[in-house]
Amino acid sequence: MKSTFLNAINQCNEEHIPVWFMRQAGRYLPEYMELKDKHSFKTRTHTPDLMTEISLQPLRRYPLDAAIMFSDILTPLEFMGAEFDFSSGGPKLQNAGESTLRNIQPLNTDDMAFVYEGIGKIKEQIGEKPLIGFVGAPFTLASYIVEGGTSKEFSKVKHFLFSNEKEFSKAMQTLASSVGHYLKAQMQAGVDAVQIFDSWVGFLNQDMYEKHILPHMQELIGIAREGGKPIILYSQPSSHLLTSFAKLQTDAISIDWRVRLDEVAETLDKVGYKGSFQGNLDPVATTLNWEDAKFYVEDVLSRAKKANILNRYIFNVGHGVIPTTKFETIEKIVEHVHSFRN
Amino acid sequence: MKSTFLNAINQCNEEHIPVWFMRQAGRYLPEYMELKDKHSFKTRTHTPDLMTEISLQPLRRYPLDAAIMFSDILTPLEFMGAEFDFSSGGPKLQNAGESTLRNIQPLNTDDMAFVYEGIGKIKEQIGEKPLIGFVGAPFTLASYIVEGGTSKEFSKVKHFLFSNEKEFSKAMQTLASSVGHYLKAQMQAGVDAVQIFDSWVGFLNQDMYEKHILPHMQELIGIAREGGKPIILYSQPSSHLLTSFAKLQTDAISIDWRVRLDEVAETLDKVGYKGSFQGNLDPVATTLNWEDAKFYVEDVLSRAKKANILNRYIFNVGHGVIPTTKFETIEKIVEHVHSFRN
Repeated sequence: MKSTFLNAINQCNEEHIPVWFMRQAGRYLPEYMELKDKHSFKTRTHTPDLMTEISLQPLRRYPLDAAIMFSDILTPLEFMGAEFDFSSGGPKLQNAGESTLRNIQPLNTDDMAFVYEGIGKIKEQIGEKPLIGFVGAPFTLASYIVEGGTSKEFSKVKHFLFSNEKEFSKAMQTLASSVGHYLKAQMQAGVDAVQIFDSWVGFLNQDMYEKHILPHMQELIGIAREGGKPIILYSQPSSHLLTSFAKLQTDAISIDWRVRLDEVAETLDKVGYKGSFQGNLDPVATTLNWEDAKFYVEDVLSRAKKANILNRYIFNVGHGVIPTTKFETIEKIVEHVHSFRN
Repeated sequence: MKSTFLNAINQCNEEHIPVWFMRQAGRYLPEYMELKDKHSFKTRTHTPDLMTEISLQPLRRYPLDAAIMFSDILTPLEFMGAEFDFSSGGPKLQNAGESTLRNIQPLNTDDMAFVYEGIGKIKEQIGEKPLIGFVGAPFTLASYIVEGGTSKEFSKVKHFLFSNEKEFSKAMQTLASSVGHYLKAQMQAGVDAVQIFDSWVGFLNQDMYEKHILPHMQELIGIAREGGKPIILYSQPSSHLLTSFAKLQTDAISIDWRVRLDEVAETLDKVGYKGSFQGNLDPVATTLNWEDAKFYVEDVLSRAKKANILNRYIFNVGHGVIPTTKFETIEKIVEHVHSFRN
């Protein structure tokens, strides 16, 4: 296999450390901002040619080791009874609340045909380079549906879970099965790996996670496994849930910047985790001049080396890159990571 | 000593487990909302009689074991060159940014005389019941000053710290010394214990915390120690920083709801922490009916028992109570916690 990214996931990478950035497509690139001025978010995510163009933009600038499809974790929800409006900054759901979650409908994965078409087009252009697909995890999607957007405390969705476990579980089942099948369909359309984003699950404690979330994650992953491609799990702040994540035995866990990579590797090793690692750079490092950023990049790399996981580590940020990210710094980071092992 | 709260801090409580709630004063009580309609936030925090009334309101409803003065962690900043506006929901700072932090002035603690007067008035009314004072920790205050309010990623304040350690440290020194002296002055005015709120420091990793924050916290605590009253430290999400917090040897650490109380006690014991524990209830539990909330309350209590820390544990939420908190549930929680050990 030629891809260092896929080799790292398969724990047999002997070449340079692969690197990609969460949110590398969209958000901060001027060529993306141009498209943003011309087309609504819905048009950008629903038009295979625009999705392709935006996914390719960062690869033209930097020698990244993987592409990630441009889309949104909330996109499938519009076919399930919860269409978000993206016109005013963050996502907003008009009819947000428990009853919308209670009435959530299973996804007919055929409704996402425009995404599969985009995947095909991206793959045509990037050849051997791997393409990453993704979904939002059930709890994170449930949070958006009940809260109507992001939240400071996620008290509404947690109130639903804490006061009506049965109905909450029913909705989680629908979400898990839907995104599981959607991941499988992305794999069949050509993605080489997928990432599950569980952005908000860190607001639950470990007991709640194990009792109310883990079974649905297992269901989701079981379905996605039928697609035969590797699965990466991402969440933050996640340090208190890491040993539970290990039980899911995904091919990789993407960790945030709050924890020490070598300590996480040791902790997960102790509980029998067999997968690869991704992430750990503080996203704020990408907003610094290279001379300042270098320290943070080297710290992560040296911890990966110390933990003896260089053949199963993928460099990435611990959370998406931010709008004030510096292009030259990203360029230098990629160069530095690539040369670390050569 | 008659106070179970102070006895628990002094690790010799043999009576019922004491309980108070972060944000027990203000926010969700109808009698507070009435005052809120009549008086601006500034008036409410700057008028000793209003401050007294609001601090006492929750004690009239529930047999809580401590009062906390009604004030705001941002209040001293208006005398230091950063006056926040509270008129539109959350706090907003017009001239937010690095330069405002760079130009922050030391607090003349005499400027806070209205708070000391309020403390005196509260103490007159509550007699033997302990009163808790508080401040915001330097990093949390610096975050508010640079970001201008709350933030999703705290990338601006972190950018300042990551790119200009020296100037950041200078500002942190001013903040640490100022709030240290302010804590001491609160103690001299009559509070029986203080809590340091470091709400946002969890956005840093442990290395950054130890290098750039810990020394300023030690400075702050060193000054406050001259006041001779116990000190509680609060932060969330804090699980990745707990062993660093232990180094501060505060009299108590207030922990969030994400972690397991018994596991935290074990971890901190291993690193030589000698203090007491507070908190751990998920604040969302206070929004449930008592029959649903009971499970979460009992879970925390049973973990305190399992950890053998009942003589040095103070029941509290892991983060402030939320506006949808149910009065009857708070009442039942207090009753249940008080009867647990009898």
